[in-house]
Amino acid sequence: MRKYNFCAGPAALPEPVLRQAQQELLDWRGLGCSVMEVSHRSPEFVEVAERAEQDLRDLLTVPDNYKVLFLQGGATGQFSAVPWNLLGADSKRADFIHSGQWAAKAIKEARRYGEVNVVASSEDRNFSYVPARGSWQQSEGAAYLHYTPNETIGGIEFDYVPEVDCPLVADMSSNILSSPIDVEKFGVIYAGAQKNIGPSGIAIALVREDLLDRAMGNIPRSLSWKVAADAGSMDNTPPTFAWYLSGLVFQWLKAQGGVEAMAEQAMKKSTLLYEFLDASDFYSSPVEKSSRSRMNAPFVLADDRLDKQFLSEAEKAGLLSLKGHRSVGGMRASLYNAVPYEAVEALVAFMADFEARRG
Amino acid sequence: MRKYNFCAGPAALPEPVLRQAQQELLDWRGLGCSVMEVSHRSPEFVEVAERAEQDLRDLLTVPDNYKVLFLQGGATGQFSAVPWNLLGADSKRADFIHSGQWAAKAIKEARRYGEVNVVASSEDRNFSYVPARGSWQQSEGAAYLHYTPNETIGGIEFDYVPEVDCPLVADMSSNILSSPIDVEKFGVIYAGAQKNIGPSGIAIALVREDLLDRAMGNIPRSLSWKVAADAGSMDNTPPTFAWYLSGLVFQWLKAQGGVEAMAEQAMKKSTLLYEFLDASDFYSSPVEKSSRSRMNAPFVLADDRLDKQFLSEAEKAGLLSLKGHRSVGGMRASLYNAVPYEAVEALVAFMADFEARRG
Repeated sequence: MRKYNFCAGPAALPEPVLRQAQQELLDWRGLGCSVMEVSHRSPEFVEVAERAEQDLRDLLTVPDNYKVLFLQGGATGQFSAVPWNLLGADSKRADFIHSGQWAAKAIKEARRYGEVNVVASSEDRNFSYVPARGSWQQSEGAAYLHYTPNETIGGIEFDYVPEVDCPLVADMSSNILSSPIDVEKFGVIYAGAQKNIGPSGIAIALVREDLLDRAMGNIPRSLSWKVAADAGSMDNTPPTFAWYLSGLVFQWLKAQGGVEAMAEQAMKKSTLLYEFLDASDFYSSPVEKSSRSRMNAPFVLADDRLDKQFLSEAEKAGLLSLKGHRSVGGMRASLYNAVPYEAVEALVAFMADFEARRG
Repeated sequence: MRKYNFCAGPAALPEPVLRQAQQELLDWRGLGCSVMEVSHRSPEFVEVAERAEQDLRDLLTVPDNYKVLFLQGGATGQFSAVPWNLLGADSKRADFIHSGQWAAKAIKEARRYGEVNVVASSEDRNFSYVPARGSWQQSEGAAYLHYTPNETIGGIEFDYVPEVDCPLVADMSSNILSSPIDVEKFGVIYAGAQKNIGPSGIAIALVREDLLDRAMGNIPRSLSWKVAADAGSMDNTPPTFAWYLSGLVFQWLKAQGGVEAMAEQAMKKSTLLYEFLDASDFYSSPVEKSSRSRMNAPFVLADDRLDKQFLSEAEKAGLLSLKGHRSVGGMRASLYNAVPYEAVEALVAFMADFEARRG
């Protein structure tokens, strides 16, 4: 029996997607083999790849002058790829907004290859808020500004897109496809798949075409967006099953009403949980109200000696993976697209009951 | 209905492995979710990861002073990783044996980072043979010697392990786990999974521990074997489904009798096909007898105008993916571990029949 899964990643996938994958796992399209067992250059797989790209383009209204890349690895791989691809031409300087642990990792890797200016940070209050729009300035001559629209661990989410003169680069791993975005405001958008797209082991990058020629001369081939773009993301054998499954998720998203419907759902789900947290004296959110993520909701119990019991009873109640990140403790409920509203209702009901019994 | 699949990669997987994956795709171990939907740091997944490593160690008798790494991407990613990890310390020089298209790609990437000496090559006869043991010498002070024990496209396979004073690095993508190997003769063995291990999107590396400290200072984090080794291959979210499936393949291999049994099978299957080719005036192998691969058997028809018909009739007969690589044409039958002897019997029977009717 399927349970409600609040894992931060690898996260819940839509059940109909898994059912389809299961049904055709040994004999895909009547070919007599699995989708995992066909050449990535076969007409059948190329059709999967092209449809996935087109569906993603449709979902996010990606303009024609952006390449859509399906890459090996996840966001961490792209932490290396971003400086290697963008710090080679005019400028060795990059701006970063430091909003938490994922931004920190991106910054750390970029510092190895150029001058990094942290132009805004919420470190002063333990990354519990989003640096306000207009409270900071980009630096002169930066090759790009990088930010993390949603911090999976800290549970904060930007409610604005930074306006800058240089290319804007966003790690959207944990909130891509959860609302409409204006792709034209970005130079590069990238995301590891394992939260809102598909299984782990594949990453997506949308790269504005004029940025493909800025790489450092000795960029490793496997990190080069240009190499990937020129080869239709098939310079080497891509992670075909992950690509196929991501494509099924895109089809499912379209059938659900696209990212507009996902944005509505995300607001409804997160509001239910946050309103419950705010009304309670037993549970609380460490994140400032205006900065709270619709995707990842960390929360704590008034008495952390009850954490273990909370988690164990939650699991028995069919509510999985509510443990907070190992670096922060407490709880975290991730409410990605594949987590239904009913899951949040069940969570809130359980939490109320737990509080009544143990609070 | 499952058909016989001779794809060079992503290649056939053992049917029992796919059946198990299918059965538990939506509810793994009764957890109420898929193996794709659990954290890579959950006790359940860590157990999968550790068992996969131990099974691989058992299968290849990997000594304790070798790290077993599960990496993002495939062999092409490792073409970058090898020079980055090994050309940083004492020497910027690497030796290569050039045996065909995959060796060429590894050479091309290494040349961007150091001095590459091609110490042996079979280019003079279109890579139709393995440079003989003793016919070449390593160069002075090389950081490593790289070779490709099996060329997937050319269909040649080394029947010896080069003896060199420097660390030996082998791209074993297409023949790993098809026979016992003496790991101690190697500094590094790496392999993309999608031929003899699992689905595409994951690579394995066995790295002798003393080689972990030789990387170039500015190595991209995502390419670093040391980073991967220190983090138990979980510096970032690994491709969990591919890791899990690879682990199931290792269990299957052990149940089949391990790599000794696979070696016996490989010899039996390839001998059946090659003896048939040699006895025929209609089909022929472009590879010298002593260098023929047990894994990938390219062959041509006497009249290439019949190629299309051959492929179309083969497919109707339930024999998939026999088309040769797009760069060489003709046919190719890949006979990896998951391809049963019966598949080769069926192939040979079909080929005999086709020859009788069309030859």
